[in-house]
This record gives sequence, structure tokens and C-alpha cells, in this order.
Amino acid sequence: MDSSFLRDLLDRLQNGQIDTDTALEKLKMLPFEDIGYAKLDHHRNLRIGFPEVIFCEGKTSLQVSQIFTKLADCNSNVLATRASRDVYNAVNNACPEAQYHELARCITVEKEAVPKYKSPILVISAGTADLPTAEEAAVTAEIMGGNVTRLYDVGVAGIHRLFSHHELIMKAAVIIVTAGMEGALASVVAGLVDVPLIAVPTSVGYGASFGGLAALLAMLNSCASGIAVVNIDNGFGAAAMATSITRLAEKN
Amino acid sequence: MDSSFLRDLLDRLQNGQIDTDTALEKLKMLPFEDIGYAKLDHHRNLRIGFPEVIFCEGKTSLQVSQIFTKLADCNSNVLATRASRDVYNAVNNACPEAQYHELARCITVEKEAVPKYKSPILVISAGTADLPTAEEAAVTAEIMGGNVTRLYDVGVAGIHRLFSHHELIMKAAVIIVTAGMEGALASVVAGLVDVPLIAVPTSVGYGASFGGLAALLAMLNSCASGIAVVNIDNGFGAAAMATSITRLAEKN
Amino acid sequence: MDSSFLRDLLDRLQNGQIDTDTALEKLKMLPFEDIGYAKLDHHRNLRIGFPEVIFCEGKTSLQVSQIFTKLADCNSNVLATRASRDVYNAVNNACPEAQYHELARCITVEKEAVPKYKSPILVISAGTADLPTAEEAAVTAEIMGGNVTRLYDVGVAGIHRLFSHHELIMKAAVIIVTAGMEGALASVVAGLVDVPLIAVPTSVGYGASFGGLAALLAMLNSCASGIAVVNIDNGFGAAAMATSITRLAEKN
Amino acid sequence: MDSSFLRDLLDRLQNGQIDTDTALEKLKMLPFEDIGYAKLDHHRNLRIGFPEVIFCEGKTSLQVSQIFTKLADCNSNVLATRASRDVYNAVNNACPEAQYHELARCITVEKEAVPKYKSPILVISAGTADLPTAEEAAVTAEIMGGNVTRLYDVGVAGIHRLFSHHELIMKAAVIIVTAGMEGALASVVAGLVDVPLIAVPTSVGYGASFGGLAALLAMLNSCASGIAVVNIDNGFGAAAMATSITRLAEKN
Amino acid sequence: MDSSFLRDLLDRLQNGQIDTDTALEKLKMLPFEDIGYAKLDHHRNLRIGFPEVIFCEGKTSLQVSQIFTKLADCNSNVLATRASRDVYNAVNNACPEAQYHELARCITVEKEAVPKYKSPILVISAGTADLPTAEEAAVTAEIMGGNVTRLYDVGVAGIHRLFSHHELIMKAAVIIVTAGMEGALASVVAGLVDVPLIAVPTSVGYGASFGGLAALLAMLNSCASGIAVVNIDNGFGAAAMATSITRLAEKN
Amino acid sequence: MDSSFLRDLLDRLQNGQIDTDTALEKLKMLPFEDIGYAKLDHHRNLRIGFPEVIFCEGKTSLQVSQIFTKLADCNSNVLATRASRDVYNAVNNACPEAQYHELARCITVEKEAVPKYKSPILVISAGTADLPTAEEAAVTAEIMGGNVTRLYDVGVAGIHRLFSHHELIMKAAVIIVTAGMEGALASVVAGLVDVPLIAVPTSVGYGASFGGLAALLAMLNSCASGIAVVNIDNGFGAAAMATSITRLAEKN
Amino acid sequence: MDSSFLRDLLDRLQNGQIDTDTALEKLKMLPFEDIGYAKLDHHRNLRIGFPEVIFCEGKTSLQVSQIFTKLADCNSNVLATRASRDVYNAVNNACPEAQYHELARCITVEKEAVPKYKSPILVISAGTADLPTAEEAAVTAEIMGGNVTRLYDVGVAGIHRLFSHHELIMKAAVIIVTAGMEGALASVVAGLVDVPLIAVPTSVGYGASFGGLAALLAMLNSCASGIAVVNIDNGFGAAAMATSITRLAEKN
Amino acid sequence: MDSSFLRDLLDRLQNGQIDTDTALEKLKMLPFEDIGYAKLDHHRNLRIGFPEVIFCEGKTSLQVSQIFTKLADCNSNVLATRASRDVYNAVNNACPEAQYHELARCITVEKEAVPKYKSPILVISAGTADLPTAEEAAVTAEIMGGNVTRLYDVGVAGIHRLFSHHELIMKAAVIIVTAGMEGALASVVAGLVDVPLIAVPTSVGYGASFGGLAALLAMLNSCASGIAVVNIDNGFGAAAMATSITRLAEKN
Repeated sequence: MDSSFLRDLLDRLQNGQIDTDTALEKLKMLPFEDIGYAKLDHHRNLRIGFPEVIFCEGKTSLQVSQIFTKLADCNSNVLATRASRDVYNAVNNACPEAQYHELARCITVEKEAVPKYKSPILVISAGTADLPTAEEAAVTAEIMGGNVTRLYDVGVAGIHRLFSHHELIMKAAVIIVTAGMEGALASVVAGLVDVPLIAVPTSVGYGASFGGLAALLAMLNSCASGIAVVNIDNGFGAAAMATSITRLAEKN
Repeated sequence: MDSSFLRDLLDRLQNGQIDTDTALEKLKMLPFEDIGYAKLDHHRNLRIGFPEVIFCEGKTSLQVSQIFTKLADCNSNVLATRASRDVYNAVNNACPEAQYHELARCITVEKEAVPKYKSPILVISAGTADLPTAEEAAVTAEIMGGNVTRLYDVGVAGIHRLFSHHELIMKAAVIIVTAGMEGALASVVAGLVDVPLIAVPTSVGYGASFGGLAALLAMLNSCASGIAVVNIDNGFGAAAMATSITRLAEKN
Repeated sequence: MDSSFLRDLLDRLQNGQIDTDTALEKLKMLPFEDIGYAKLDHHRNLRIGFPEVIFCEGKTSLQVSQIFTKLADCNSNVLATRASRDVYNAVNNACPEAQYHELARCITVEKEAVPKYKSPILVISAGTADLPTAEEAAVTAEIMGGNVTRLYDVGVAGIHRLFSHHELIMKAAVIIVTAGMEGALASVVAGLVDVPLIAVPTSVGYGASFGGLAALLAMLNSCASGIAVVNIDNGFGAAAMATSITRLAEKN
Repeated sequence: MDSSFLRDLLDRLQNGQIDTDTALEKLKMLPFEDIGYAKLDHHRNLRIGFPEVIFCEGKTSLQVSQIFTKLADCNSNVLATRASRDVYNAVNNACPEAQYHELARCITVEKEAVPKYKSPILVISAGTADLPTAEEAAVTAEIMGGNVTRLYDVGVAGIHRLFSHHELIMKAAVIIVTAGMEGALASVVAGLVDVPLIAVPTSVGYGASFGGLAALLAMLNSCASGIAVVNIDNGFGAAAMATSITRLAEKN
Repeated sequence: MDSSFLRDLLDRLQNGQIDTDTALEKLKMLPFEDIGYAKLDHHRNLRIGFPEVIFCEGKTSLQVSQIFTKLADCNSNVLATRASRDVYNAVNNACPEAQYHELARCITVEKEAVPKYKSPILVISAGTADLPTAEEAAVTAEIMGGNVTRLYDVGVAGIHRLFSHHELIMKAAVIIVTAGMEGALASVVAGLVDVPLIAVPTSVGYGASFGGLAALLAMLNSCASGIAVVNIDNGFGAAAMATSITRLAEKN
Repeated sequence: MDSSFLRDLLDRLQNGQIDTDTALEKLKMLPFEDIGYAKLDHHRNLRIGFPEVIFCEGKTSLQVSQIFTKLADCNSNVLATRASRDVYNAVNNACPEAQYHELARCITVEKEAVPKYKSPILVISAGTADLPTAEEAAVTAEIMGGNVTRLYDVGVAGIHRLFSHHELIMKAAVIIVTAGMEGALASVVAGLVDVPLIAVPTSVGYGASFGGLAALLAMLNSCASGIAVVNIDNGFGAAAMATSITRLAEKN
Repeated sequence: MDSSFLRDLLDRLQNGQIDTDTALEKLKMLPFEDIGYAKLDHHRNLRIGFPEVIFCEGKTSLQVSQIFTKLADCNSNVLATRASRDVYNAVNNACPEAQYHELARCITVEKEAVPKYKSPILVISAGTADLPTAEEAAVTAEIMGGNVTRLYDVGVAGIHRLFSHHELIMKAAVIIVTAGMEGALASVVAGLVDVPLIAVPTSVGYGASFGGLAALLAMLNSCASGIAVVNIDNGFGAAAMATSITRLAEKN
Repeated sequence: MDSSFLRDLLDRLQNGQIDTDTALEKLKMLPFEDIGYAKLDHHRNLRIGFPEVIFCEGKTSLQVSQIFTKLADCNSNVLATRASRDVYNAVNNACPEAQYHELARCITVEKEAVPKYKSPILVISAGTADLPTAEEAAVTAEIMGGNVTRLYDVGVAGIHRLFSHHELIMKAAVIIVTAGMEGALASVVAGLVDVPLIAVPTSVGYGASFGGLAALLAMLNSCASGIAVVNIDNGFGAAAMATSITRLAEKN
């Protein structure tokens, strides 16, 4: 592509269709415009049906509302994460189609059809307190086209709850495990399956959980393999990773 | 399968082929034998062509040698990680086919044909000091059937080195980035691609790198998406994750 | 019990009381239902007179109130920890028998008789600021049937206060020590007795106490033996451990 | 006892058998001698059949050997922990009955009969690398009279291995779980049982395990109850706690 | 004193003034009552003119007010630290003589004459933001009888400000240095003098000051000698240490 | 100057204009007054056109307002950092010329002409959330005479955005890079240029960013050279360093 | 420059001196070759008289020796840091002109004349134990053309030693301060001058210095301005920053 | 003294014995020479009978030996801390009077009579493993003239051992407490006395002691007052502080 663009430009120069200065001007911009353009194009291709993402924390309701409606006006699908109900109200005034996912603290609008991937993404949470992060992952994966199943409140303190859903677990193509406190659920599930597992430590806990550090370290040190970790409470990041995996799986 | 096993058992009981006590004895063992068996079977299926893995650190040369040869005698493919040359010498005496990968500090033997996955796994290292971890990842992925390409010493201090391999990067199905010090390479690469990227912080650095903590935190906080992280220096874990992704991609 | 359940099922199958499919259906569920059921049953046995426990932090007053009354309606004893007075007011509206333990920040209701264990559990606090944690431990142990004595404000800065209750200490079967700041009281008491001691670091302190870390590390490094530690401010966990010990002591 | 000693002393004074000065001298020493004596006595009572314990780290072979033989000469049972083979050789020269427990890195000698407690103490290890700590716990508990069963290498990466020993686990009176890396095993086991569980984080791991910190934090944040934690690699401490529990259980 | 108390008791027993049981009862209580009493007495002796100290954080206005007036009613001098103006208002209502030291966040009442020590205690602060801690130290030392001089805002960024008070510094008997941020002032002052210096790290700072940790570590690692450190923001503790030093100096 | 002051003093003494005692008195004060004076003078020289700086955090609106107007009354240029709008309102009432820089949270007043340095200072931010810190740097540098260009929102997740401003970057004399999260932008930019780069980690991020620690460690461990780091969120400090560099560059 | 290269290329194409394919081939490589080349060229310009730098830690003597001689054979100036004497011996065998700087642990060879900058760089160390880092900075700056003065062992514990070199300090254009322990010297010096100061924390210290963390945090929190920090023990990095500043200063 | 020096100088100027330039030259140097001289003198006064101190860690045997003998040749008393036997051998060859204190790892030589302070300094250690630090404190205090009593192995695990030395403790003028592990002994002793107590955390311990961090934090958070802390293992620093206190006490 770069080559054909360049060949065309050079041919037009040799043919006298453009002069040296015109070609020079275009070529000067090329090194980065080209990369930028390719990248943008590439991104645009990738993003068909994908939401632009707004991280709301640290932004005012007005700022989020403006960015959101600007994106929605371009017929983009939009995802806003870490959005309080106040933020949603502001967005909703300006963009009535916007939907609020209370537990996930997400706002979405779907302007274009999202490609639907078939590979099942299973989102597991250890406890009910991990639901905000688990739902952020689930809602993110869904707006990106993921085929999401939820399996909540199956922490290791009552491990029979997990095992009673053995078949569900074995059918998943990618698994996201959200867990706070000691984060042990990620290792236990990873020991049962051979598909990629993305572990999300949550800040659920108190005292020596140090805001999710305990779960984070536990997941990084998992004795099981086929497991990788994202930042504390980063449901969005886990879903982005999971979606990039299912996209790859269905590209072939 | 569980069902057919159970149906057969119950039919034989109803038909009087076995009595209640015999059935009871078998069923008593089922809950875990069944899980165990299914798991083992599953594992066995997974492990066709896959190495059994021995983590050598904290084991004597004799111990590694005995485990290694016992596994190799079963015609398993075997992978031993974190193996010094002394450990290799011990293994080599007992198992002459064993090969040593000096940089990767790995010993392998391939007794069965490994299924070859086509999806390109690209292993990138930031500096030459990250090579042991990068090679551990590469050798692990290869013995597991991965189609591995290496791209080494392309750290962000001279980012043109990275960009001159733009095409190689864009063709990868899964990318493993190993980097110590500030670990910035993972974010830069993740910003260029839309495939899953597994970041491996290394303990390369000194002072405030705190044994790889700086790179680990950087990678967990990446502003790019489609990235997940494994433990410091855990080349093996990154390769296991990458292989589970390519396996999924080619299963479909 | 599992056996008798299974034997009964199999006998009924052999006797034609049920057919293969019915038995199959039940057995299919067994591996996990059985574990689950056994566990539930086991739990139910354990829980005779024991409260179901609700951790209120991060739950709304409404949520706690609904869970609480649902449990109380089943004639369970219920314990809710980390409950503010607001939460209690909501619970109390729905469940007038519910009692509030202000200092302990606990709500309890006792619907069934709790088995009373005789082994004395001694709950010690270093200072008055540790009382919320100490009372959480005491109230938890009591609702679980523990025979609790309280010994408060006997920190090591005036160690004669501790020693003047030497007899009380020597009579205890299990001791819970709650202490913040430097947490030294746990070691001092453990040096006086030969019964199991459960140390609870509290977040009482400022500056280099780092939210209870100083006391936690001190207790983990105790030079005395017969001591084990729970999470910072985890009065509930200490009481659960203490009760499991006294239950064991009185089972024999 | 204190009382009878005092009464006797006072009676002899009132009777003129001793004069004020003699009584004074004895009483002057009493406050601490008495405590000391009572404590020593108490300790001695406790220690019938119990070893005196020597922590070898940071002591020379000569120092350990001298302390060991001095204690053994008093017909005490002796336990030395963290003893290298060199230390053992020095001890063995001076005290030929001394036994070395290689894996546990412990030296023991049993001069007096140890009271045997019946309550089963189950020592579980997650991996083979945790064996030194697990064995330190097992050997310590045995020399203190514990009825120890070992269950090793049942980590959560292959959880069926754990469940296949379900009965063994359910029969235990006290459980010690030693685990490094993410330490998840402690939570999983605690979720299965209602007996006291003592969790021992080990320093097994690398990178973000930070010398056992990951496992320590995980265990402190366990979502299961009836669990308490000792210092990293502190097999001795876990056994001392377990023994104090079984002693209590059998006193009743 | 203990001796004379005991001798008197024993004499009265020998003389028949009391009987064995009476003596026994008293002696039974002695080991700890005696220590306790001696200690209390000792404390009372120490505390002539000294305030009882109330740490207000975590106490309600009502609680502080009640404790304060109860102590003041005994004609004790009282010091309450970390007291907000709200707390003071509550105290002031009940005890009109109570004085508020706004900057120091302290409440004092002086019912008895405080012994005045002559040795100059110099309280130095690095910046104006360190004044609350510096004033807590100064007010505490004054109510305990200290001869306090204040030298504020002489941080090392403009070290000439410090040196222009060289004589003041050289005349001090004990120096308290309060400093946040990098805490360098403590080392600089300690390098100028040969009197004991008590360093108080403050939580003044942001970012990598980590709540005073930077200053704390700096002070602990001072290259100067004759320096010791108290907890972050612990002005009270520094004054207590300083006063115990001047008391010693003037006892001789 | 010191010399001329001294020479004058000494001449006056030699000439009998002052006597020994008068000279002595002045000289006695000299060692520090002289340093102080010289330093002040030096500072005054340095500070021609430079603002006095007020760090507002931890000061009341009244305090800031009083300090600000006192400085402004001396015809000084004044800079107040970390100022909320409330603080500005108070300042503005007293000093109507004071300007508020909302994003930068700075208040400035320019009473004297600031010397304008020509060397371009480029202030780069990784994301929009880093703007408060970036603007604090920019506003500070401008009031100190810096020739500031802003390049915002060019983080490494879309590195083409950075490269499209390659020329701007190459023209800078000093570069300030503000970045939160993983802070990778500093290394990438430093790899492109050979001018001094000052890296400012920001507290932007969540979870394992630990309030900016991740970015701080990353920047300290940069694999690029010609880079130095200031405290988290310390835009002011970076600008002060940058200005001292440009001042040096233009002095020659 | 890029432009002239491009114009020339395009002119030759238009003139028929080269054909489209030749131009295409060159242009294809341009985006990165150009950046690379420009960068290389730039680097080459920068590096006239500058050493290529080899970080020896983690490399074998053979590896260092080979890299060193390969670079020296190109008539480059070479600097190897963190080189033991053994490494030097290996280098010296292959490259007899190589010089060893024992204290600095550096090897240098100067094949080309280094441009000499006039701006004085002052390298200060707090103690003698900081000399290796200080000398690494000094030797690095010298091989890069810096005009280096050394001022060693002037730590704040005897601050008069520092002040007796006041003139030397005031004359410096850039100052590097290396200090371990509490690192206070950096703040004190920065308070005296208005030139850029680069602070290098060293790992000198023990206990709560935590390998240089105390000094690092202190320097980051300096109350003085015009100061920036590099990694612990990073003398090389400080010199690279200082040289980039003096280069800038003398470019104008 | 400064005054007399200045008066003399000024008188000689007024009398024409020296001219303005000569006086100027001398006065120019005065600010620092004077301080330096005064300080040196002051130090010399302080140091009558006091050793110069050499911290041996990180110095070669040769370096220590040369510094030691150079100091001893000036008839100074010398103290070298952290000295191995090898270092001592080197010193002893050059300075035969040098004495080695094995446990304390100190070398001393006493050339001048040390002033003997009468105030008793009590050095307490919690365990035998704390002896190196305790002895470093004791030997340091003694060479500085301290009247030292040792009380070793009285840790809180057997607190009666401490109380049996109650009188010894009550007689001390200053107390140094060295303790590792949980460091509780410092608080217990501080609770018994009203004299200044210097707490020295030691690195004795393992696992979660984190090299003495646990004891350090515990001591900083002591609930007792009249206590201040020095760096981990810093016996020398504690003794220097203690000596400066006793010096003060006996100056009056």
C-alpha cells in the first residue's frame, strides 16, 4: 500500500503531472502522515462496530457529555467507563439513545451494527462486591461484539458453587476472572481449563489487601499457566484483551 | 462422556450385571476420580506434542535429571526451564537426546511430533540483557508448537529500530514483549497493533528498578489496550498464554 | 451419609422404583450437587445456632436490609458486621427483633438457640481505640456460642494493668488480642500462656503505622509461639478461628 | 499453688519458724521469682515431653552443638530448627542420639516420652518446593506429640489432586497449609472444612512474589473463615499453634 | 519502699495485728498490685505538675470533654492533643479554664504549678506547614515544664536563615527538629551541635513524600550523630522525650 | 560586592569614622548576615522578573491572600501554585490584577517586566488528564520568562500523534514531559532528542499506579539518557529546572 | 536536510538520472531510514568525540572486550561503565590504549579529539563511600567533553566543609550531587545556587536506607528548586544530563 | 573567642599593624574558616577523650588500617565499627595497641583518658541474636566515657526474665533497647520507666521482618512515651545519642 501510493506519486512526478515541489511537500509529510494515516486507517478498520472509549474519572459531567455526543454524532458506537449516574444524566440529556449500565458504571450507545464474535467469553466474579468490575468487563466486551456469559459469586470459599458450573467453564473460549481479597479464584479456574484466562484483581477487601495489591500479587504469581493479568479494577482492559483474542480466533 | 460412563454403569446395575455394592464403590470414587480422569484426559489431549515442564530452580541436578528422564522415557516431550549448564550436564548424561538452549536456560527433548500452529508469535526484547527471558519465551513457545519470530534489541531509546520492523510487527498474531528498566516498549508496541500482547517485565535494571517492579508497574498501567502482564522474568508463562491463544485461533 | 444417599438411590434403581434416566439425572448432578449438598449440609450442621454473616461495607442499607430479613425469615441466626447505625435503622424497620451492637458495629438476631461452648474465650484490647475491632470479635464469638470474657485497655505502656488480670488470662482456653500501633501486646500475652492466641492488628495509629501495617508485621514476627494472625481490623475472622477451636475442644 | 506457698511461708513466720527478715528476703524476690518460678513450672509442666527449641540461623555450629547437648544432658527433648547438615554433624559428634531430618532441616532428640495427642493434624503442601517448610511443621508437631498426616503437592493448579483426598481432609482436627507463589491453597482448603486452619506462606516463587509477600497477603485476605496466618516459612510456628490447639482439645 | 511496705505487713503479722489470711489476701494481690501501685505512685510522682494526656483523634467531642473535665476536677494538669476547635468548644463549656492552642491543636489546663526546668529546649521547624507539629511539641513541652524557644521556617532551601540563628542553636540543651518533604534540616542541625536532637518527620509534602515516609527515612539515615527519631507528625512524642532528657539533666 | 561592603567597612574603621566596637558588632553579625544578605541579593538579582512562589496547599484562602498581596505590594511578580478557585477569589478581592489560570491551578501577577529567554521550552503531556501538571509547568515557566510551547495528548498509545510533531520536538532547547500511568512517553521522547529532558510523573491512573509511583519508577529507570526526574505532579519544579537551564544557555 | 536530500532525489528522478524503481527503493526505506539516518547522523554529530557507552553489568568479560574493541576499531571514543578490573584486563589485552578508572569502575579510550565545553561541571560527593558514583559521573562527563571539577566528602554532618568551598560552588554552571544515606546535601547545595542541579542518590547506607530508597525519596521531595533526580547510583545518567545542558549552553 | 579573634584583627588594622587589604583577605575567609575553625575547635572540645569513628563497611582492610593508624598517631582515641576480624588483623599489624571487640565488631584504641560519666546507661537486648548491635552500642558508649551496664536476652516471650531485673532498669539514667523480630521490648521497657529510651531495631528475623522493617515500624509506633528510634542495627547511633544525653546531664 505504501509502495503503491509512493509509486503513483513518483510516476506522476516523472510524467510531469506534478512538479518537484508538490511531490516534495507530500513526501515531507509522508514519514509521519503515512504512518499516521495507515495507523488511523488501520484503527478505523479495527474500530468498525467498536466503541470509542471515554474514561470518565477526573472529567466533569459536561466534558464527558460533550465528548460523548461529538462521537455519537459521527455515528460511532461509544463506550464511557467509570461513569456515575450524574454523568449519565448529563450525557442522556444531550444524547437520548445513550444507555446506562448501573452496575458496570458504563454508558453505551450503538449507532452501527457491531460484528458479533461467536467464541464464548466467560466473565466470572468471585463475590458480589466484584460485580462492578465484572460488569465493566462484560459490558465492554459486548459493545465490542463479544459473546458474553456471566458466572458470578463463585469464590473459592464455597468452591462447589464453581464446580457446579463445570460445563459452562469448559465451553469458554476466553475467560475473565475478577476477584478481590486473595484473588485465588483465578488460579483455581486456570487449573481447570486450557484456554487463555485474563485475571482482573479488584480493590475489594480491607486492611492488608492494600487496595487490591494482595489480589494483584497473587494473580501474578499464579501456579497455573495460561493466565495473564491486568491492572486492579481494570474490567475494560480485560475485555479489550479478550476481544482481541476472539477477533484473532475468528479471523482464521 | 461422563453421562455415557454413568449410563453404562447404571444399565449394568439395573440389568443385574453388577450389584449395588460394586456400583456404590465405583460411584463413591467418581466425584473426584471423574473430575480427575476428565482432567487428566483433557490434559493428556492438550499435551499431545506438548512438553511436560520442570521448573529447575530449587531442585538439585539429580532431581531434575531423574524427573526429566522419567518423563522422556514415557515418550513425552519435555521442557525444563531455569536450568544451569550443570543441570544440563546431569540431564544429558541420563538422556543423551536432551538439547540445551544456553541463552534461554532451557533443556528440551522432543519425543513426539509437536503440532505446528501457523499463527505467528512475535517475541520482542527491549535490550540484549532481556534475552534470557525472551529466549525462555521463544523456546517454550516452539516446543509447544508455536511459529516463533524473534525481534531483539529494539528498545524505545532508539525507537527507529523498532519502526524499521513495522511489517514484521503488523503480521504477528500474538506478540510477547520482554522489557526491563522502565518497560515502555510494551505500551509502544501495543499502541501499534490490534492483536493480543503479553508483556513480560524483566528484572533487568538497578537501583529504583527494585528487581523488575518498575517495569511490572509500568506494564500494568499501560495506556494502550489489548495488553496483559505476567510475572517478572516469566518468559515461560508468556509463551504458555501465547500458545493457548494461537491454539484457540487455529481450533476454529 | 453420601454413601447412604447413594445406596438408597441405587437400591431404588435396582428395585425398579426409579428408572435409569431418573437415576442418571440425579447422579449427573451429584459430583457437584453432592459436594455442594454435603457441604451445605455440613454447613447447616455447623451452622445450627450460627449466624449467616453479612459484611455490610460496600452494600446499601436496602441491600443489607433485604438480605438480613430474608435470612431471618428462614429462622436463621444472622450476623451483620461493619454496619453503621443507618444500616441498622433500615434493618430494624424490616426486622424489629434485630439488635444493634454500637461499638462492635454489628447487627444480630437470634432465631434459634445457639449451642453454648464452655471454653472461655478471652478478648483483650490494647487501647480504647481498638474497641470496635475487639467488640466485633466478642459479639461474633457470642452469636456463634462462645463463652466470652472481655479485658480491655491493658496495653503494654502500663503493663501492670495487664498483670493485675493474670488469673483471668491463665484461665482462658483461647485468647484474642486486638492491638494497633506497635501491636506488642500480642507477644507479651503469648509469652504468658500456652493456649492458642489469635492476634488481630488494628488500623489504630497514625504516620508510620501505615493503616495497621506496623502492628501486622509485629504480630507476624512475634518471638512468642502459639500465636497466629488475621487481617487488619478483622475481629470477625479472629472470632471465627477462636470458635472453630473451642468447637473442636468440646467435640472431644 | 502460689497461695499454698505463701500460706506456708506466712504460717512459718507466724509460728516463729522463720523471722521477718528471712520472710522478707523470700517475699522480696517473690513478685518476679514467683512469676518466674510459676512460669517456669508451668512451662515445665507444658514441656513434659516437649523439646526445647533452638533456632539455628545466625548461630555457629559450635554454639548450637553446645546448647543442644546441654539441654539433652538434662534429659530434655530437644528440637533444633533451620539446621544445615554441617550443624547436624557438629551436634551429632557431641550427642550421638541426635537425629537429622534432612528435608525439614531439623535436629531432634527424644529423651523423655512425648504425650501423644490423638487429634489428627494434617500438614498440606501446595508444591514440592514447599516441602522444607511443611516438613519443619510436621517434624515440630511430631516431637511435640502431634498425630501428623502429610498431604503434599496438591496445589490448586491441578485441584483434582486435592479433592481426591477429600476424606483425609475432612477427618483432620487441625490443618496446616504451606504454600508459596499465590498461596491460594489455604483459601480453597479452608472453604472445605470447619476446623481451624493455620496458613504458612512460603518464600517459594520469584519476581513479584517478593520473598513470600504475595502468599502472605493472599492468606491474610482469605475470603474463607477459620483461618489464621504465621510468618513466611514459619513451619515451626504453625506447628506450635496446631499443637496448642490439639492440647486444648484433649484437655477437655 | 516495697521493702518497707512488706516489712510493715510482716511485722504486723508477726505481732498478731493481722492474721495469716489477711496478710495472705494482701500478698496475693501484691505481685501485680505492688508493681501497679509502685508504678502508679511513681507515675504520680513524675506527674506532679504534668498533664494527663488525651489523644483526641477517634474520640467524640463528648468523650474528650468528659475525660478532660474528670481529670481537671482532680486538680490535674491536662493536655489534649489533636483537638479540633469543635472539640475545644465542647471542653470549654464544661471546663472554662481550658485554653486552646489553635496552631498546636492542643487544649491545656494548668491546675497545679508545673516545675520549671531551665535547660533550653529549642523547637525548630523547616517550613510554615510544619507548624502544627512544631507547636504540638512546643505546647507539650511547656505544659510539662520545659523552657521552650521556637525557631520556625529555617529550612535548608535558604540555609542562611538557619545560620543567622547560630547562637540560639548553640545554646540549646535539647533540640527538636520538625521537617517534612526531604527532612534534611535534622541532619544539618545535628551536624552543628553536640546536644541530643529529636527529629520529627512531618507529613508535609505530596507525591513521593508518601505521607511523610520520605522525611522519616531521611531522618533515620542521618549521617550526623546524636539524633533519634519519632513517628511522623508526633510532636507530642518528641516533647515527651525532650522533657525526659531535661528532667534527667536537672536531677543531677 | 561582599568585598566592597567589607572594604568600605574596613576603610571607615581605618579612617576613624567608626571605632573598633562598632565594626566588631557589624562583623560579628557578618558571618551569617553577610551570607544571608549576599544570598538575598543574589536571589534578588536572580529574581528580577521572577515571581515569588506561594504553594497554596495547606494554607487558608486568607493566608494566601495576605502573602500574595504583601508580595505584590512590593512590586514583585508573584506566582501561587495549587490554588483553587476559592483561593483565587480571595486573592482577587485584595489584588484585582491577579490572574487565574484555571487548568494550571495557578494565580499570577506581573508587576515587573520579565526577561524573556529565547530558548524554546517544550511542555509535552501524554494525556488530557495530565494537563493540570503540564499547565502548572507551562504557566510557571512563562512567569519566569520562558518561551513555552505546548504539545498535549500525544501519549504512546497512539505514537503517530507524537511523531507528527517531530519538528517541534527537534527544535526544543529543553523539554518537559508530563505523563501518568506507565510514564513511557518520557523515554520515547528522550530517545528522539539530545537536549535535556525533565520528566514529571503524574498521579493520573488507578490501581497499581499507586498515586503516580508507577510513572515515577518508570521515569527513573529510563533506558534513554539526558533525562532527569522531579516529584510526582511537580510541574512547578520541572519549570524551575527548565528555566535554570535556559537562563544558563542564554547567559553565555 | 531531509528536504535537501529529498529534493535532490526527486530532481534526479525528474531529470532521468535515476528511474522510478530506484527512487522507490530509496523512498521505501526512507520513513524509517530517514528518521534512523537523521537520528544516526544527529547522533554521529553529537558523538564526535563522544564515547559509545557499554554498560558492563550482566555481560561477560569476553562480550565487553569484543564490543569495546569493535567500537574502538571504528576510531570511536568508547566508555564502558560498571567494569570490574577483570573486565578491564580482558579489554586491555585486546585494546592496549584502553584506560581503567579504578574508583569510577570505568574503561575509556579516546580515539578522536573530544570537543571541550567550558562551562564548569561541579561533581560533589557527600561522603567517601559515594566516590564510585561520583567518579562514574566525573569520568563520563570528561570523556563527553565536560570541564569537570570534583568536590568530595562535604556532607552535611560537617557543613562547614561545604561552605569553605563556597566560591567553587558559585562558579559552577551545572552541579551534580551524589549522596547516600539521607541525601540531604542535594537540598542544601540547591538552596545556595541558581544553576541546574542533578541529584544522584547512592545506595550507600544500611538498614532503613533500603538500598538508596531513602536518599532517592529525599531528593525527589527537595524543598529547594532547580533540582532533578536520576536513578540510584546512576552517575552516568547524571553526567549525560549535565553534558546535554552544557552543550546547550555553549551552542548559543 | 570569635570576638577576641575579630577584636585583635580589627585593633591591628586600626593601629596600622596590618592594612585594609590584609584584613580584608582574612575577613573574606572568615565566614567559613571561622565557622570551620570554631566548629573544629568545638568538636575538638567535645572530642576530648572521644574516639574518631571509622565506619568500616565498604572500605578495604588497607584503607581502614591507614585511617586508623593516622588517627591513632595523633593521640586520638579511635573507634572503628562494623570491622571484621580480617580488618582488625590489618589494623593490629600497624597499631599493636588496637583492641578487637569480637561480638561488637569494633576496634578501639584509647590514647587519651576518656572522661567518665556517672549516669548509668543500660543496654538491653531482646535476644542473643541482637548481641552484635547491643555490643556495638555498649562498646561505643564506653569508649565515649559512658557508664554501661548490659542486660541481655530478656525478650518479651518470657517477660519474667525482664521483671526480675526491675531494680537495674529503674536505676538507669538512659536506656538503649535493641530488639529484632517484633521489637516489642522497647515499648514494654518504656512503659516501666521515665528516663529517655533509645530504641534500636535490629535486622534479626526472617520472612515478614523484611530486614528489620517490622521492628522499626513497631518502635516508631510505640504506645509508650519517652522513646525515640535510630536506624536498623545502628548500635553506634544509639550510643552517640545516649552519650550526648548523659553529657548534658553531667554538665549541669
